[in-house]
Amino acid sequence: MKGVPYWRIRSLIESALAEDIGSGDITTSSIFPEPVKAEGRIRAKEECIVAGAEIAREVFFTIDHAPALDVTAIADGSRVKPGDTILFISGDGRTILKGERVALNFLQRLSGIATLTSKYLEMIDGFDVKILDTRKTTPGLRDIEKGAIRIGGGYNHRFSLSQAVLIKDNHIILAGGISEAIARVKKRITHHLNLEVEVSNPAEAEEAFHAGADMLLLDNMDIESIREVVKTINRRIPIEVSGGVDLLRVREIAGAGVDYISIGALTHSARAVDMSMDIVPSGGQG
Amino acid sequence: MKGVPYWRIRSLIESALAEDIGSGDITTSSIFPEPVKAEGRIRAKEECIVAGAEIAREVFFTIDHAPALDVTAIADGSRVKPGDTILFISGDGRTILKGERVALNFLQRLSGIATLTSKYLEMIDGFDVKILDTRKTTPGLRDIEKGAIRIGGGYNHRFSLSQAVLIKDNHIILAGGISEAIARVKKRITHHLNLEVEVSNPAEAEEAFHAGADMLLLDNMDIESIREVVKTINRRIPIEVSGGVDLLRVREIAGAGVDYISIGALTHSARAVDMSMDIVPSGGQG
Amino acid sequence: MKGVPYWRIRSLIESALAEDIGSGDITTSSIFPEPVKAEGRIRAKEECIVAGAEIAREVFFTIDHAPALDVTAIADGSRVKPGDTILFISGDGRTILKGERVALNFLQRLSGIATLTSKYLEMIDGFDVKILDTRKTTPGLRDIEKGAIRIGGGYNHRFSLSQAVLIKDNHIILAGGISEAIARVKKRITHHLNLEVEVSNPAEAEEAFHAGADMLLLDNMDIESIREVVKTINRRIPIEVSGGVDLLRVREIAGAGVDYISIGALTHSARAVDMSMDIVPSGGQG
Amino acid sequence: MKGVPYWRIRSLIESALAEDIGSGDITTSSIFPEPVKAEGRIRAKEECIVAGAEIAREVFFTIDHAPALDVTAIADGSRVKPGDTILFISGDGRTILKGERVALNFLQRLSGIATLTSKYLEMIDGFDVKILDTRKTTPGLRDIEKGAIRIGGGYNHRFSLSQAVLIKDNHIILAGGISEAIARVKKRITHHLNLEVEVSNPAEAEEAFHAGADMLLLDNMDIESIREVVKTINRRIPIEVSGGVDLLRVREIAGAGVDYISIGALTHSARAVDMSMDIVPSGGQG
Amino acid sequence: MKGVPYWRIRSLIESALAEDIGSGDITTSSIFPEPVKAEGRIRAKEECIVAGAEIAREVFFTIDHAPALDVTAIADGSRVKPGDTILFISGDGRTILKGERVALNFLQRLSGIATLTSKYLEMIDGFDVKILDTRKTTPGLRDIEKGAIRIGGGYNHRFSLSQAVLIKDNHIILAGGISEAIARVKKRITHHLNLEVEVSNPAEAEEAFHAGADMLLLDNMDIESIREVVKTINRRIPIEVSGGVDLLRVREIAGAGVDYISIGALTHSARAVDMSMDIVPSGGQG
Amino acid sequence: MKGVPYWRIRSLIESALAEDIGSGDITTSSIFPEPVKAEGRIRAKEECIVAGAEIAREVFFTIDHAPALDVTAIADGSRVKPGDTILFISGDGRTILKGERVALNFLQRLSGIATLTSKYLEMIDGFDVKILDTRKTTPGLRDIEKGAIRIGGGYNHRFSLSQAVLIKDNHIILAGGISEAIARVKKRITHHLNLEVEVSNPAEAEEAFHAGADMLLLDNMDIESIREVVKTINRRIPIEVSGGVDLLRVREIAGAGVDYISIGALTHSARAVDMSMDIVPSGGQG
Repeated sequence: MKGVPYWRIRSLIESALAEDIGSGDITTSSIFPEPVKAEGRIRAKEECIVAGAEIAREVFFTIDHAPALDVTAIADGSRVKPGDTILFISGDGRTILKGERVALNFLQRLSGIATLTSKYLEMIDGFDVKILDTRKTTPGLRDIEKGAIRIGGGYNHRFSLSQAVLIKDNHIILAGGISEAIARVKKRITHHLNLEVEVSNPAEAEEAFHAGADMLLLDNMDIESIREVVKTINRRIPIEVSGGVDLLRVREIAGAGVDYISIGALTHSARAVDMSMDIVPSGGQG
Repeated sequence: MKGVPYWRIRSLIESALAEDIGSGDITTSSIFPEPVKAEGRIRAKEECIVAGAEIAREVFFTIDHAPALDVTAIADGSRVKPGDTILFISGDGRTILKGERVALNFLQRLSGIATLTSKYLEMIDGFDVKILDTRKTTPGLRDIEKGAIRIGGGYNHRFSLSQAVLIKDNHIILAGGISEAIARVKKRITHHLNLEVEVSNPAEAEEAFHAGADMLLLDNMDIESIREVVKTINRRIPIEVSGGVDLLRVREIAGAGVDYISIGALTHSARAVDMSMDIVPSGGQG
Repeated sequence: MKGVPYWRIRSLIESALAEDIGSGDITTSSIFPEPVKAEGRIRAKEECIVAGAEIAREVFFTIDHAPALDVTAIADGSRVKPGDTILFISGDGRTILKGERVALNFLQRLSGIATLTSKYLEMIDGFDVKILDTRKTTPGLRDIEKGAIRIGGGYNHRFSLSQAVLIKDNHIILAGGISEAIARVKKRITHHLNLEVEVSNPAEAEEAFHAGADMLLLDNMDIESIREVVKTINRRIPIEVSGGVDLLRVREIAGAGVDYISIGALTHSARAVDMSMDIVPSGGQG
Repeated sequence: MKGVPYWRIRSLIESALAEDIGSGDITTSSIFPEPVKAEGRIRAKEECIVAGAEIAREVFFTIDHAPALDVTAIADGSRVKPGDTILFISGDGRTILKGERVALNFLQRLSGIATLTSKYLEMIDGFDVKILDTRKTTPGLRDIEKGAIRIGGGYNHRFSLSQAVLIKDNHIILAGGISEAIARVKKRITHHLNLEVEVSNPAEAEEAFHAGADMLLLDNMDIESIREVVKTINRRIPIEVSGGVDLLRVREIAGAGVDYISIGALTHSARAVDMSMDIVPSGGQG
Repeated sequence: MKGVPYWRIRSLIESALAEDIGSGDITTSSIFPEPVKAEGRIRAKEECIVAGAEIAREVFFTIDHAPALDVTAIADGSRVKPGDTILFISGDGRTILKGERVALNFLQRLSGIATLTSKYLEMIDGFDVKILDTRKTTPGLRDIEKGAIRIGGGYNHRFSLSQAVLIKDNHIILAGGISEAIARVKKRITHHLNLEVEVSNPAEAEEAFHAGADMLLLDNMDIESIREVVKTINRRIPIEVSGGVDLLRVREIAGAGVDYISIGALTHSARAVDMSMDIVPSGGQG
Repeated sequence: MKGVPYWRIRSLIESALAEDIGSGDITTSSIFPEPVKAEGRIRAKEECIVAGAEIAREVFFTIDHAPALDVTAIADGSRVKPGDTILFISGDGRTILKGERVALNFLQRLSGIATLTSKYLEMIDGFDVKILDTRKTTPGLRDIEKGAIRIGGGYNHRFSLSQAVLIKDNHIILAGGISEAIARVKKRITHHLNLEVEVSNPAEAEEAFHAGADMLLLDNMDIESIREVVKTINRRIPIEVSGGVDLLRVREIAGAGVDYISIGALTHSARAVDMSMDIVPSGGQG
């Protein structure tokens, strides 16, 4: 997966296989004590953007090194229709059976995220607005979920609390005000870090701007307030909107002239894409 | 979380915090170079069954050992309404700010699974049928997702390929038939392991039963076929149904007289429950 | 080793080498600062069933990737006589010297287990009884020790407390009786799990059977009691015997008509098989 | 265990529990969904030297932190008779049941090693000879097995290839002779490291001594040859004997006037000591 | 250490102790088989800024949990003179002896970094310029070395390649020019990330500014060129200087009106501060 | 690196890359979304002994497996002049850019150690004295730093507290005297371990010798005292000197007739050697 180091992928896959195989696949090994030549195909059962195909491919090579194993996967980012082949594998049927579930678990979840992202993009077609993810990702899978966002056409907000400053409502409450929070940050950080501030109404937006925010995050504002802030700020710093954004509302927000829309649901509530694997004995008819 | 060893929870939390905090929470540490007394509350924003509250509590103690930190969490399994407090924390505000997102990520996802499970249970109220999960879980989180299923009132199917024998369609195809696959398994496994067989029509069900299956998994069958199998088997071995089960169809299937219904969507497509954390300076009004 | 994932083997070997080599093999590296071509042979010094040969082979490839290294090992499960070659290696003598002890430690221990298992099998020749292992394995090596049991012709009892239900004496004492313990389990587990009950006399066996046990474990019973239970149960559920089984007593128990005999000594008290490695400079006479 | 860092013990225990408990102790948790007060005792079933009692105690605290848990263990090194209590535990019965097997697996194996070591010591009573272990230990458990040797009254030979120089037969063959091998080592190592040389007859012993060996290892020599070497060396450097030493032969070798006798069987072939745990409900009669 | 999670510190310490203690401190444990009450003091042998005192304290608690152990350390950031006590410890002398070297290794290295940083700060006294570190840190220790920089009064440049965009000479060469490289970045990143560009002469600085750089890094420029860029940019974006900065040159550069000076030598070439530990038997005179 | 197992090198590199790359190299991946052919050269900017070249080479192969990647490195131990190429790499420019800093961090630090070691060797040219390192190494990097010492021509003192006995001043104080400390050690250790004793004046040296020390460590003695000890001991046991040894003083000490001089500064205060990498697009002019 682009942008994720391969040793990280390998480590994720080994953990997932350890979890799924436990002390051994007792069904497969009691039916097939010896190798059995086979071919398998993972096919889409609904239209989607594929993400995780490269990871799925690696799953099988993690189980089996043998030169006889051959796996071809579609490129991440491909749009497929029901019935299309996403991954084709040929080799020992036991390897295919052992890796099937883990490969599908990665593929279905990541493709779900990429596909949902692409749906938001379709809704804002024509506007110069970027769709962002959030930190509302699955514990332990942030890097590959953010990879799926990119594959779906979205952009990544910060990867961790160390990548960018974002002063949120709770920081402001404890610090005693927007200007005070911004002033404290400016005293301690360097220019290598951008300073974004979360605000909940036009007055706060204005305060944050004048206190030196490099970027605004309008949280849970209604459309009129968003428009008012856009007008006041007048492109001097970028504006991001978050909170309660769904497929119905996203176009209206994009039309208000903001720069970014961030959506937690892309990762915390994407449903898995439906896919399945078929296996046949090999020797021709696969 | 009941049934999950504490060192496993601790290790999950440390990984999640490492992922989220990265090289440091630069926002919080530049606003608050010194401790700041505060109180926080995680509240539900929609009705749900809480799962992961104990994990969320542990998140904060992983960040901070100090005796001044006090965290109270509602019991896992509690049903809460919008506005109800799920977790109350009092201590250094920096600890609260650093742990907020990771605590919520666990809580919202796990509560989503428990809540969805409980909805299926409501739909089959009055029937003696158990709702089961599957292996379609998030890579790396299977044990806590299966914990959330139990909290929601469901039961766990096998944890891994090593826990029970389940002869699936692909095993049967490669083995050359149901009876052949069952015979091979019987030759190699001991009685400590149950032998379940996946079938797709009444004829296969009958074949599997006569070949010695201990349990049947009816995969993607229509309701008439399910009823026919139930009648033929006549309670001699338990019957599980899977495939395409949703909230609308589940009651009809339960009514057909099966013993188990397994649902992949409980884990692969549950959406996160909406929750949020409020923080106030402490010294009284929290 | 069949049924054990290769990344698990690799990780076991890396730990064992780290433990044995420490900060470096100072003897070998001071005698041989440069590569020295050599050939080595691991030979049996007593008759045995070989287990762990594949692991031993992997030990050397873990130390050295070089294409010049060539290692051939006999198949696991082979019966060898004193003097027979189990593993032949050709390459840099320093690699052979560094891996010798770790390779032998795995081979001698695992072959000891496989060989002891095969001796029990010889003793019960002609009876339709399976020899089982137990959970009395070396901490950290359970999967490969259970692999050695299979290589020796035995079968595996449960791998962990999560694989099967086994109600033991201590459960029964705390629960307040056999029937009570069984009833509680039946209320909470699904049919994917087999329910075995440990009993210590014929009366308990009968109680367990009537309360719904799927299988009985007769613990430390005398031969008359075992025969009585076999007669009463009359093949309606399988019977396992454990406790104080040795090579002298095993045939009598097998003859009583039970299905399984489980023996802790197979893993907790097998002695290592005697083997050694000879190394010669290469350039011909090896 | 004396001389083994506690974090190493903790890590060994966590791995062992993870291996044994897997995804959960389904028997215990279905019988006892709620805590049940109980007391347990691990008792010896044969006379032995206890080793691993402190580790066994730690096993239970790894499962359960609760202040209600109380565990008392006999000191490592104690000699116990059949029926003696080695460890007493009081607390939630579920904790006792979950930890029982792992605690016993450590205790029985380590006590087996300590007890066998003490038997060799009894055989050489009156002689000023030290019993040593070897590197023939269980992969992954070397440090605690060497700890059990010390508890049994033995001494430790090198922990790893990096702790001391030992030129063995295979080094000598590849180097082209004893003197050559010793000369090469002397050129590259410092005086912080002792130089021991393995020899197989009196002539080799003499060569090694004159070439500068700090210590001799007489491997598989008959008693006459051993006596000859002892006479020739005349206490100028220490002498160790190894190979084919058993309980019958050890006294004769000790009597020959050597300084050390090293015995691989102490770790590779010690049988587990017989022990068991009894549990009773608490509220008095325990 | 402020800003570094405690589990990270604990893991660093455990690795360092494992490395240093190996299979056991044979000197200490053979001299002191039983506890020996003692007191120890780590004292400075030259003037310095202390960094790592909290880590040093934790080293001893990692070795020994006993309530009898008492360790007091001076606050990180304190300036001490020769003879001043940095850490006082009272407890089992064996714990003090085992932790001495590892505690000193952390303390001396980190204090060396903090002290060197403070020397640069003294040299630029009176100028509004921040001293920055670089990514030229010790592999594996970046977070604590950056912590030492902060303790010494410096600021942190990016922690990793993921925290900020810095287009360096090699990026520019491969991209075919400054403007092209900047344009490509602007197309793909969001505003959460700052865009710094490395330039080597005034013309490049101007090109980078006009192409949209948020910040400039003047690499290895002479003082006249630096002054020219400062004048041209005229505070519209911040300017950082790096390359060949030493204690003699730093004041001149600061005087040129730049905002940041980054210095690799702070971490890659700081020498350890001289410190030592004295131990005395306790029972009074310590 | 000779004498360091490759899986240890691999693990060090993976940690270092994870630390440096974080969640991704955002600069490189936004400028170059697709592969770009390039060539890079790491060149020395000052005369030095190269150490770590093999590690640097492995850094790039850890990032990228592709057969198109080609990396050639000079042999560790080579002496290079300013401008000389240490490593040449050809392949995807993104791989070169991502690995540049980590490769240089290893190379510059390790070459710094090797080079400083070689300078001490030059100073004592003509004397039969060995330069030793100490345990004052960077936490986590001891094995490769000790490897760099060997590359520079030095020898290694003990790797850890478990490799050799060294009775230091603090042991002596707590034990109540030199003879007492030596006597206690002799009672408990075997002859596989050398016994070195630290002394601070000629009288202590004599006491240690007569009590049975195998080797003396003269700590912080003036040159007259050193000469006196050399004379008294008269080559009966080896003598090591440590404490306050610098490039100016080392020759005088060597001339006093000692066997070893150990120098902490070799590892705790070596400065990084200056090196840099140039990258050019490939297709010829590289």
